[in-house]
Amino acid sequence: MSMTTTHIATETTPRDDSVHNGLDAIFRPSSIAVLGVTNTPGTVPHDIFVNLLSSRFNGVVYPVAPRKKHIAGVRAYDYVIDIPDPVDLAILVFPGAVCERALTQCVEKGIKAGIIISAGFREVGEAGKVREERIKAIAREGGMRLIGPNCLGVINTESDVRLNASFARAMPAEGRISFLSQSGALCTAVLDYAAGKNIGFSKFVSLGNKADVGEVDLLYYLANDPKTSVILIYLEEITRGRALMKAAREIAGNQANPKPILAIKGGRTAAGAAAAQSHTGALAASAEVCDGVFEQSGIIRCASIEEMFNTAQLLADQPLPRDERIAIVTNAGGPGVMATDAAVGQGLKLASFEPATTAKLKKALPAAANMKNPIDVIGDAREDRYAAALEAVFEDKNVSQVLVILTPQSMTNINAIARTICDIKDRYANSGKTLLCSFMGSKDVAPGIEILQQHRIPHYILPEWASDAMWNAAWYRQWLDRERTEVQIYPVDHKRAAAVIDAAPDGYLSEAEALKVLDAYGFPVVEHALAQSADEAVAIADRIGYPVVLRVVSPKILHKVEVKGVILNLGSAGEVREAYCGMRDHLLKHITAEDLTGIMVRRMIPVGKEVILGVNRDPVFGHMLMFGLGGIYVEAFKDVTFRIVPIRESAASKMVRELRTSSVLQGLRGEEPSDLAAIEDALKRLSQLANDFPRIAELDINPLIVHPAGQGCHVADIRIRLQKNGVKAD
Amino acid sequence: MSMTTTHIATETTPRDDSVHNGLDAIFRPSSIAVLGVTNTPGTVPHDIFVNLLSSRFNGVVYPVAPRKKHIAGVRAYDYVIDIPDPVDLAILVFPGAVCERALTQCVEKGIKAGIIISAGFREVGEAGKVREERIKAIAREGGMRLIGPNCLGVINTESDVRLNASFARAMPAEGRISFLSQSGALCTAVLDYAAGKNIGFSKFVSLGNKADVGEVDLLYYLANDPKTSVILIYLEEITRGRALMKAAREIAGNQANPKPILAIKGGRTAAGAAAAQSHTGALAASAEVCDGVFEQSGIIRCASIEEMFNTAQLLADQPLPRDERIAIVTNAGGPGVMATDAAVGQGLKLASFEPATTAKLKKALPAAANMKNPIDVIGDAREDRYAAALEAVFEDKNVSQVLVILTPQSMTNINAIARTICDIKDRYANSGKTLLCSFMGSKDVAPGIEILQQHRIPHYILPEWASDAMWNAAWYRQWLDRERTEVQIYPVDHKRAAAVIDAAPDGYLSEAEALKVLDAYGFPVVEHALAQSADEAVAIADRIGYPVVLRVVSPKILHKVEVKGVILNLGSAGEVREAYCGMRDHLLKHITAEDLTGIMVRRMIPVGKEVILGVNRDPVFGHMLMFGLGGIYVEAFKDVTFRIVPIRESAASKMVRELRTSSVLQGLRGEEPSDLAAIEDALKRLSQLANDFPRIAELDINPLIVHPAGQGCHVADIRIRLQKNGVKAD
Repeated sequence: MSMTTTHIATETTPRDDSVHNGLDAIFRPSSIAVLGVTNTPGTVPHDIFVNLLSSRFNGVVYPVAPRKKHIAGVRAYDYVIDIPDPVDLAILVFPGAVCERALTQCVEKGIKAGIIISAGFREVGEAGKVREERIKAIAREGGMRLIGPNCLGVINTESDVRLNASFARAMPAEGRISFLSQSGALCTAVLDYAAGKNIGFSKFVSLGNKADVGEVDLLYYLANDPKTSVILIYLEEITRGRALMKAAREIAGNQANPKPILAIKGGRTAAGAAAAQSHTGALAASAEVCDGVFEQSGIIRCASIEEMFNTAQLLADQPLPRDERIAIVTNAGGPGVMATDAAVGQGLKLASFEPATTAKLKKALPAAANMKNPIDVIGDAREDRYAAALEAVFEDKNVSQVLVILTPQSMTNINAIARTICDIKDRYANSGKTLLCSFMGSKDVAPGIEILQQHRIPHYILPEWASDAMWNAAWYRQWLDRERTEVQIYPVDHKRAAAVIDAAPDGYLSEAEALKVLDAYGFPVVEHALAQSADEAVAIADRIGYPVVLRVVSPKILHKVEVKGVILNLGSAGEVREAYCGMRDHLLKHITAEDLTGIMVRRMIPVGKEVILGVNRDPVFGHMLMFGLGGIYVEAFKDVTFRIVPIRESAASKMVRELRTSSVLQGLRGEEPSDLAAIEDALKRLSQLANDFPRIAELDINPLIVHPAGQGCHVADIRIRLQKNGVKAD
Repeated sequence: MSMTTTHIATETTPRDDSVHNGLDAIFRPSSIAVLGVTNTPGTVPHDIFVNLLSSRFNGVVYPVAPRKKHIAGVRAYDYVIDIPDPVDLAILVFPGAVCERALTQCVEKGIKAGIIISAGFREVGEAGKVREERIKAIAREGGMRLIGPNCLGVINTESDVRLNASFARAMPAEGRISFLSQSGALCTAVLDYAAGKNIGFSKFVSLGNKADVGEVDLLYYLANDPKTSVILIYLEEITRGRALMKAAREIAGNQANPKPILAIKGGRTAAGAAAAQSHTGALAASAEVCDGVFEQSGIIRCASIEEMFNTAQLLADQPLPRDERIAIVTNAGGPGVMATDAAVGQGLKLASFEPATTAKLKKALPAAANMKNPIDVIGDAREDRYAAALEAVFEDKNVSQVLVILTPQSMTNINAIARTICDIKDRYANSGKTLLCSFMGSKDVAPGIEILQQHRIPHYILPEWASDAMWNAAWYRQWLDRERTEVQIYPVDHKRAAAVIDAAPDGYLSEAEALKVLDAYGFPVVEHALAQSADEAVAIADRIGYPVVLRVVSPKILHKVEVKGVILNLGSAGEVREAYCGMRDHLLKHITAEDLTGIMVRRMIPVGKEVILGVNRDPVFGHMLMFGLGGIYVEAFKDVTFRIVPIRESAASKMVRELRTSSVLQGLRGEEPSDLAAIEDALKRLSQLANDFPRIAELDINPLIVHPAGQGCHVADIRIRLQKNGVKAD
């Protein structure tokens, strides 16, 4: 798998994702044929077969290898059709070029599912792509589901299955975490990493080229899998953006049985390097888009494998925290300070204790202890002090998550403290509180850590890692508890907008056309008209009232200000005439009279805050709505936020409030707050407009001038680019 | 040690930090007396003594315990004065209250150094503080150096010493890293953590209350210690800010023998919560100040223990990289992508290969491999491919750092690849290139990791950690290579400024006074005068020329705009008169005529970009200079940068360019660039002013209006607060 720099859309056909959907034959087969197996240890075709046997698969495995009598002591068959019994799952380890014939025989045999380990398909170029399309077609026609090609395989640890259909060296322990990875090699690393941390798995899938089964199918399968509590995904390219979002919202947002999804999106920074024409475009092809998509879908975005597993451990084994209020109990000040820095820096809060808690702590702890949060039971603490502190915080209703820190000092009876923590966990099993531990160190603390892990208490070598996990869990809780609102539909003049858009060719609309479209959708557009002469300009200005602005209109000019194509604040007929003539003369040095459509006369918009609203059609996710601080600051700060169209009421409200710069709009230092409601209104109208017209490829309202609360906003500049919609935003 | 919320200045006396400075008696004693030792295993007084023996200390240890004949089989003495031989180092484990007498006897005995493990001093309140002052005085008078009190002790692993004067459970392995910690408990955790990662140490010091020896003394000692290559510090309170900076600059910045210093400052977020009056004040008491101080001193700031040790491993065992250009060699695409994301996200660059390199790779690797950076030798790679790829990048002059990633796939011969990497390291030992590895996983890769570690090749379980380390090393290299400039001294009218400042009481200067000070120091102040009547205002305006601005002057009004105390752009005598009367009437509703000093008439400053320049007197570091984007944005973005006064030429230049918003000043989208030279000039003048007048507690030029390049800047508002200097900025 080579490095992908951005999302690449492939032509995967959408599919109804009903329960299981044929995937049980992959995860829970009764009989398996391995095609292409050899007798040479250390090669994939051999190791896969041996792994199946040595993991004690609860079913029958048939080696298929022409002209071989037996493989690793098991009777072999020349072809899959020679196998006398029914077969559920075929694993193909043939070289890519030979797979086609083997797969045809699988269909003939009536096999319901296949895992194609072999490489040599789409990833090697055009010929491979053709091969991949052909095997896909064979499988589709034959009613077979396929994992791969070019993958590491599939693992299911369930004790009544025990399937290690992969070339990973060892079967992982059984657990409640399932992992999907687009990088096969990452799978082997993750399995080994998790083994070192005593992390178990339920299902483990190397996605490979995703010719047939992709992450969306698997998400639905895992959603219905009672053995999976947490789903982890490593993705490089996202092919079915909308479907992924829908699946994630349904699964992670299932109120009755929320199943958290954690994802790493590889290829963040390279993507940002792709240059693009408009601001929306440039900013859309970046990490911010994925952040917006994940945020909107309830997917917990992780920056690293470590963060992903740290969080997964908490979510797999502990109740989802009620909120972001934590308590820390430590026997060492320094680590308490560092954990607090990390936690508060993330967004967690140190719980304020009830008076009863403080009283209990005062009674149980020595005078030198710190009774405030973080509670410091001091270096010579033994299990009794930990027990007293933990009882106190578990009974405090202001505490939702509890982090226990231990440093191995010479008086620290590590194992006894670990057992005490396990007791507390059991006694407060119904408290709904999350319990995490950090026994800092490595060697001395190892036996204590093992006691904790046996009791399924998440453990982290460093307290900062626990803070990451606590924050991700709290974020997910906030997302689950978010206000649920609908998409607001405005009464608009759809016909008038359609008349403009449907008649226009691909490319930019003129400013007049673009303003007509906005006007039809109820945007606050100011009065304007196109002038072809100074006289006409003055007449228009007289009609709409002074002061006015002159703005060049020409298909050749995209950035008006740079060619001095905008003159502001003209207060009289004389000023308008003079400005018109000056601008016209200046422009004709750059463009021909033919290319100068005219000069627009527009009522001057009063001063206000500049914001930018944009739409960009992402090749994977379809229309994305962007909001940010306007003017030159949008480029300097990249302080923008994205949502997939259409947006709900609550999303509009969040967008205008979640920028780092939102405080500027909310009124700083005695300034009047800006009209946030008017911005929200514009965002929702823009969402509706984009949703109604798939041909809108790009739209920038930059700036939208926002006035103080109650005084609305005005569109100061607009650009709309149309292009035939080549995106299947599935 | 309880949680510290901000830097606390204590009254440590400055001291000449000459080489060793008596600290050899602490780290390399020939004989040690342990005072207060007991026969009860599991207690500090007993364990310390046993640790000294069991770590095979290369000298004599004398237990001192009244009325005990022997301790752990060793002949004991009633009092330290009873010991018949000379003693270099005393370790005191008596309860705090008893220490005084014991220490007096140590002085009597002629002992040169002491480590006071005992708690019960400054950390327990007033009585303890008095006790601490007393033992400090005894030691100072007796010529003894002291570590502690309230600490874990000291470790020196050097084979001819082998000193474990601590209650840490085990002596760490010998290594080139020295560690200083203000949190004793963190020491025990760090020792155990490092043991699990095969990290060795040279010196290990728990600082405790720092009654005598602090981090600055120890930095100088370690700077002269041939066994220390890297210094790590965990600090909560910084007591001698300037001395710390000076020491760090000398040690980390020693061109002949640069010794990197890595630091964690605990208590970042809580500090930020402290509210303050002015913007400079509010922003100063935050993490940004420490960031500025560390940046200026060449200290590598680490956010976590993990980042600190990841970086220390690289710096201890590998050459300092020439620059930020890295090459990645991997057998797995996904981890390559993740490492690239992490590296580029930090500031590292993927090296562009020379054509010869690409040719070598094409020859040696299979067609499906990725020959570009990151080089993917693909999943079935054995040691030959790794060797070929590594040779190619080691011979490419565009590469400064090399990261090798391995995922354990079934064909991966992990140990052979590890040995190959070691060979490459030896063969290219003189290339000056940094080599790091990430064998991802835990169990399967363990033997390979051990091979690497034996060859002192830094190893990281996750490639992202390696990226952190590579970036920190590259940052340090950039700092070492920075342009060295001097502090520029302007010819200024010091006398005129002194006349204002020396005459004024503590508190705010009036605007007129403040402007006089700035004017004397050559700041671009516009013409102005104070009016007491409308007639006078008109006369002044006539004299200085229109348009003008009216600004209220009153000791009662700090935020002029909020009370409508500023009226801009008055173009005629009539407008001035009307505005004067209007403002006066409005103000008199809020304040008495007595409190209205007058209304200042000032020439109107042309439109420009707003920036803020500030000075704040930090209790630890003394005068700090601040620069940021002005107006309301300074609050929204907190995009500010700090330096300790006085600043050098290069610092001024960096300050105006290192903001996230600097692109706004440099001219975006066809805008003219702002006059950066004028801002730099103002920053350097401000540095000189603050340096000349210790009584300046706070100074805000907010905003400074900056015009296009060559057109200068103007002070639009100024506030100066004076306060007697209680800070010893040592």
